[in-house]
Amino acid sequence: MLNKVVIFGVGLIGGSFARALKKAGAVREIVGVGRSAASMARALELGIIDAIGVTGESSLAAALAGADLVLLAAPVAQTEAILAAIAPHLQAGTIVTDAGSTKSDVVASARRALGDKIAQFVPGHPIAGRETNGPDAAIDHLYIGKKVVLTALAENREADIERVAAAWRACGAIIHRLTPEEHDKVFAAVSHLPHLLAYALVDDIARKPHAGLLFQYAASGFRDFTRIAGSSPEMWRDISLANQPALLAELDAYMAQLTLLRAQLAANDGAALEHVYSNAQHARHQWITAIEAAEAPPSPDKE
Amino acid sequence: MLNKVVIFGVGLIGGSFARALKKAGAVREIVGVGRSAASMARALELGIIDAIGVTGESSLAAALAGADLVLLAAPVAQTEAILAAIAPHLQAGTIVTDAGSTKSDVVASARRALGDKIAQFVPGHPIAGRETNGPDAAIDHLYIGKKVVLTALAENREADIERVAAAWRACGAIIHRLTPEEHDKVFAAVSHLPHLLAYALVDDIARKPHAGLLFQYAASGFRDFTRIAGSSPEMWRDISLANQPALLAELDAYMAQLTLLRAQLAANDGAALEHVYSNAQHARHQWITAIEAAEAPPSPDKE
Repeated sequence: MLNKVVIFGVGLIGGSFARALKKAGAVREIVGVGRSAASMARALELGIIDAIGVTGESSLAAALAGADLVLLAAPVAQTEAILAAIAPHLQAGTIVTDAGSTKSDVVASARRALGDKIAQFVPGHPIAGRETNGPDAAIDHLYIGKKVVLTALAENREADIERVAAAWRACGAIIHRLTPEEHDKVFAAVSHLPHLLAYALVDDIARKPHAGLLFQYAASGFRDFTRIAGSSPEMWRDISLANQPALLAELDAYMAQLTLLRAQLAANDGAALEHVYSNAQHARHQWITAIEAAEAPPSPDKE
Repeated sequence: MLNKVVIFGVGLIGGSFARALKKAGAVREIVGVGRSAASMARALELGIIDAIGVTGESSLAAALAGADLVLLAAPVAQTEAILAAIAPHLQAGTIVTDAGSTKSDVVASARRALGDKIAQFVPGHPIAGRETNGPDAAIDHLYIGKKVVLTALAENREADIERVAAAWRACGAIIHRLTPEEHDKVFAAVSHLPHLLAYALVDDIARKPHAGLLFQYAASGFRDFTRIAGSSPEMWRDISLANQPALLAELDAYMAQLTLLRAQLAANDGAALEHVYSNAQHARHQWITAIEAAEAPPSPDKE
């Protein structure tokens, strides 16, 4: 049981964490902190948080006093400023974690902002999201069965990592552990690059003189392929920049792959094209089969 | 009312055309022709077709005798061979159309195979598809509200184009007209290129030494982005080769776009990245809004 949890940002991610902890009976008091007074009031009204922490110097100290756990769930561009603001008031018994989509840059920010309190920061990334936001989007089951990746630091004590893990497990999440560098390489490949590619395609088409004609014939395949290009441009600008080295490496590998495919297509090399297409179809089929098996409810006689 | 329709290939596309025509009461007799005896027998059993036309010389003449309309819905690689086989038996009153995803190459095949009967060929492309196939996949409502693009030739008589259009309209489809070249440019951009890009990404990831780790963290965004990489590799090899010139042009434009984005990312130019991402998000939002408005049922007081 956590006595006091402080959450910076009570939108979809932070608010759902709060709701899930409360539903599990895993927390006594939740204090919300945020820049929008309207959002904080709404979160209080909805019962997501029990109190609003104000971001002035003395009031921040009060908000953090006696906290077991602090979750940063505000836009990642604010991470370093929030950490710098809380650093002077961070008591020895408080652990801080975050929900940012990139980790190496967050770790660098945390080292700058927290200095010799860095051992109290356990970086995390819940792999969950929807296209909605704000306190009204928060739900108590967002994290059930979802992965939360913790990218612990060499300085972290195992008991402190476990405190963060236990909170996420109380929300229904499954804990994975990677280094910050592994995390950023993985998500550059399976998330950040696809977003960049989808944005690039829609922008490319939208700029053509006959864009109207093209969109008229775009169908369900195009719709699914470009769904992620409907995501927040500001958020994905920040993620792209935050994970720039890993994203550049993945983009270069992909462009080399396209260069190869282009040569095969130009040479009318049907066998080579089919080899790539088949390998992709096969790999995707295996992946889908595996995730569907993992997501399927257990059969009754196994329970 | 069509007296006799002959369909080559009675899978999803051809079988659904047959079922829709029958449901609309728009045809008296449908003859199916195909290489798989089992599929043809199944189509007959399901009531999709009324008779099986055999592909020998004399029997093909019998199958085509008195036909108003012939639809080619077999794999596109067979198009020229089928047209060459039917050419000697094609009566003056019969119009031939097809359902291929590319049109310039089909027109070239048709000119070679049909010679001075080319005026009887009205190329078409129904924009409908699912991930199932075979006679059992055929449904009577596949084409309702879907676009069918006719890419008429200079040699076609307007009355013959209208005969094909009317048959598709009876299936519930909406007729659009483009030149074969316009058609191929449009679909290279909004369909063929996205397929190639999705196949390329999954293949790229599957070949990495840590592919297992990567797939483990791929989530719903990746799933939607790569859904079209689950399509038939043979079919998309054929489409890629058939529309090679237009697809190369679109791929080159896209790679130029990626090169630009790579430079912006390498320069940490957040404003430039956000400009591209925002433009894409905005264009996609406008497109989705337009298609949702077009697909929405009319409100009762407008009927």
